[in-house]
Amino acid sequence: MGNPKKAKRGIPPKSEFNLWYPSIVEIADLVDKRYPIKGMDVWKPYGLKAMSLIDGLARDQMSATNHHEHRFPLLVPENLLDKENKLVSRLKAAREAGVDPSELRMDDEDSGFKKEVYWVTHGGENELDSPMFLRPTSETPMYTMFSLWVRSHTDLPLKTFQIVNTFRYETKQTRSFIRVREIHFFEAHTVHSNEEGATDQITEDANMVQTILHDLCLPNLVSKRPIWDTFPGAWYTMAADVVMPNGRTLQVATYHHYRDQWAKAFDLKYEDSNGETKFCHQTTFGMSERLLGSVVGMHGDDQGLIMPPAIAPFQVILLPIAAHIRDDVMSEISTIRDRLGKLGIRSYLDDRDVRPGVKHFDWEIKGAPIRLELGPRDIDSGNCVITERTGKKYDANLATLEDAVTAALESVADELRARASNVFSSLVLELPDIINSESGHEFSSPLSDGKVYSFPFCGNDSDAEVLEKLSGLTMLGECAENYREPRNCIITGIPTTNKHHLARMY
Amino acid sequence: MGNPKKAKRGIPPKSEFNLWYPSIVEIADLVDKRYPIKGMDVWKPYGLKAMSLIDGLARDQMSATNHHEHRFPLLVPENLLDKENKLVSRLKAAREAGVDPSELRMDDEDSGFKKEVYWVTHGGENELDSPMFLRPTSETPMYTMFSLWVRSHTDLPLKTFQIVNTFRYETKQTRSFIRVREIHFFEAHTVHSNEEGATDQITEDANMVQTILHDLCLPNLVSKRPIWDTFPGAWYTMAADVVMPNGRTLQVATYHHYRDQWAKAFDLKYEDSNGETKFCHQTTFGMSERLLGSVVGMHGDDQGLIMPPAIAPFQVILLPIAAHIRDDVMSEISTIRDRLGKLGIRSYLDDRDVRPGVKHFDWEIKGAPIRLELGPRDIDSGNCVITERTGKKYDANLATLEDAVTAALESVADELRARASNVFSSLVLELPDIINSESGHEFSSPLSDGKVYSFPFCGNDSDAEVLEKLSGLTMLGECAENYREPRNCIITGIPTTNKHHLARMY
Repeated sequence: MGNPKKAKRGIPPKSEFNLWYPSIVEIADLVDKRYPIKGMDVWKPYGLKAMSLIDGLARDQMSATNHHEHRFPLLVPENLLDKENKLVSRLKAAREAGVDPSELRMDDEDSGFKKEVYWVTHGGENELDSPMFLRPTSETPMYTMFSLWVRSHTDLPLKTFQIVNTFRYETKQTRSFIRVREIHFFEAHTVHSNEEGATDQITEDANMVQTILHDLCLPNLVSKRPIWDTFPGAWYTMAADVVMPNGRTLQVATYHHYRDQWAKAFDLKYEDSNGETKFCHQTTFGMSERLLGSVVGMHGDDQGLIMPPAIAPFQVILLPIAAHIRDDVMSEISTIRDRLGKLGIRSYLDDRDVRPGVKHFDWEIKGAPIRLELGPRDIDSGNCVITERTGKKYDANLATLEDAVTAALESVADELRARASNVFSSLVLELPDIINSESGHEFSSPLSDGKVYSFPFCGNDSDAEVLEKLSGLTMLGECAENYREPRNCIITGIPTTNKHHLARMY
Repeated sequence: MGNPKKAKRGIPPKSEFNLWYPSIVEIADLVDKRYPIKGMDVWKPYGLKAMSLIDGLARDQMSATNHHEHRFPLLVPENLLDKENKLVSRLKAAREAGVDPSELRMDDEDSGFKKEVYWVTHGGENELDSPMFLRPTSETPMYTMFSLWVRSHTDLPLKTFQIVNTFRYETKQTRSFIRVREIHFFEAHTVHSNEEGATDQITEDANMVQTILHDLCLPNLVSKRPIWDTFPGAWYTMAADVVMPNGRTLQVATYHHYRDQWAKAFDLKYEDSNGETKFCHQTTFGMSERLLGSVVGMHGDDQGLIMPPAIAPFQVILLPIAAHIRDDVMSEISTIRDRLGKLGIRSYLDDRDVRPGVKHFDWEIKGAPIRLELGPRDIDSGNCVITERTGKKYDANLATLEDAVTAALESVADELRARASNVFSSLVLELPDIINSESGHEFSSPLSDGKVYSFPFCGNDSDAEVLEKLSGLTMLGECAENYREPRNCIITGIPTTNKHHLARMY
């Protein structure tokens, strides 16, 4: 029910997004941030339900693509890192020898990794022989086991996933769902017999991400990350970014093609049908509670949250009107609940003894997609009143209520997609041309704050560096969507269909 | 699918329970114990599914009793322990002052607690100002928040639960599901306005435990634990113990009445309807992956697991016979799958291209309750063949298949309950009389290994100590079930209806 007292204190206007966001996550009772460790929030029932429904979308995709759910231990012994360090050293040596730069990671000091994890050093009063860390992600624990599980080509593909909490010793400012220290995390890890198998998996991952983001009504940019932003040990990294209303991009999903780089580090081999031993190829696909952060940030308004129907904890709030006057109101509305339940529609009968205005207010804050009111007059006329959280209000015939509610849920989802798409269009602009002035490069017109800029680009890494310095923004990488017609690269002038973006990332 | 190669190596006979148990959990592919930290197993898909279904039973009970699911952080700052230490000191002082012994905990050195947890001392390369520990259970993090949430009597009762992993630095020998270091854990915590509210909650908990254990087909003993085995800070602790086939009891559920003892430590107060400030009363209810360990241990046989239908990942295995000869076999058996799916029955169509004998063998190990075979001859006669994992095999009419499968699932559950009840009866014996010999007390006949002993008892703590020393066993506490007619206390000779048990506990 949220905390009406607090809500009445008022939600900051959404136009002040950086005030609105931290306020609404608590007013709508998604989390409580008062736990005494910064960046470790308490999930309240309403927030946890929404997150569990997002997990459900991921599980549905996993099940449809024959991935199997596992659960690996939280703690990783430090000495398992030897293999990961070996990978890093190998790639570093390759870079120094000037080989294929796609094999390189830039952030290749293993101390970088060690700086981001929590270390368990004692069990009880005993200092542990080998310290252990809390998983920041699960390559090391998983691949240690994969190398025991995979023997033959008949064991492949191995398609696994887990939904667990991961931990990062975050030193930047924390924000609920967006940057936290205990992270609700989804990770799929697959093993294939060759590069093509892994490449097909990346395509499958791309489709799953778009299916989920469609359900969440979130337009997004898909990019192949620049090499210096590629995941350690990956051949390449793809990422989906949502553009938040303040113009900052939020990375909500990544999928990595590892080729056989991790397999070589973990000695992950198989025997093919000819009895030959080969290294496996691998991929990883990750998402997190940032999906919920995006939903909150993109869809909410001055009145509160708006939950996409696919993950609304309660899709329909049933509001009995004047039930104390006529006994049949409660029985009729209970019948409606049962009818909706048969369709798998999540409804909540709010029979609190408070004024209808209070209920409206509460459910507006919590962003339930549909409110359905039923009073004596409605029963007499064979109707009920449907109010969509996105604005429409109308009578619906009780006889065909299932159709009306289904259509109303679709209507809310469509409206959220349309609104988010408008916001997205207003935030993603074309980058002004670059002109050469006396002092070097400069933009033909100044950049605005809080915008993402798109532009044709086929330059090299140092060209990209010039752009980042000039704009004060970050390169998202090569967009999965190309220009239809070639355009001149903003730096080299060479015609290209490659689209890139500069943005301020969360 | 398990690992047939391994399985063919043979499962030890169940009569050698201490060999059979660790073997079957891996052969049936519930967990992999080869992760490099002892007592932290990798959950394989089949084991995780069974555990998730057990979680589902708990969630159903929570939902029916209006508990709400939360999720609290894993890490607890050491300085939050001050409150817990205060509680311990208060109870210690009370004991020294000779007050109500029901208020005491025996294990009251806070260092005892500190010996059992994992300590996080570093974030990255920084030593933390205040060390944090991995939750062994969640009183401290939860009650810290509860004292922010509870203000008025209208906030009560507060009924919460979470399903998370907890951690214990276990120094004893670890066993999958039974004694592990990362524990899949269920914990419900409630807050009430008075003792009666908490007492009613204990009754509700007792009923939920029995409902779940009925679904798991597990007979059990419910006892009020002796004072020295009461949970720290509890007024009293109730526990349900399963008797494993080796005669050792396994505590699978506990529920604690705290009165206002924890509330006083955490300053958890509310304003009643007269504006008066009062301390809350609280309860806790906990279960864990030991429930799955009990299922494995109680129901399995020489051939493998037997899954109770309520939590079988696949309740019905559909086996097409001679599908290569007649095309309609696959279409008919797919229709059966869809028909069962509509009833919410979990089925798995095993269409692997291997001999039927291999499939039988695999599913016997995994303990699927029902196998359903369908071949050309069955289609022609309008039947299929049902084999219950507990032994029965018969033809079932395809026209009324839903009824037959539903009845078969009930039959397997009933048979498991009957078998478990027989084992239980054979393991729980009456304690021989105590006679006074020259050297002190002794039993009139020697005790057998691997048995639980029941007896009438109304003695005091030192009488109990005599019994434990004499038997080498542990007192489970006062049984929730009394004798119908008074019997003479085995020590004092005073007639009593109080039943007690001595057992070797896991």
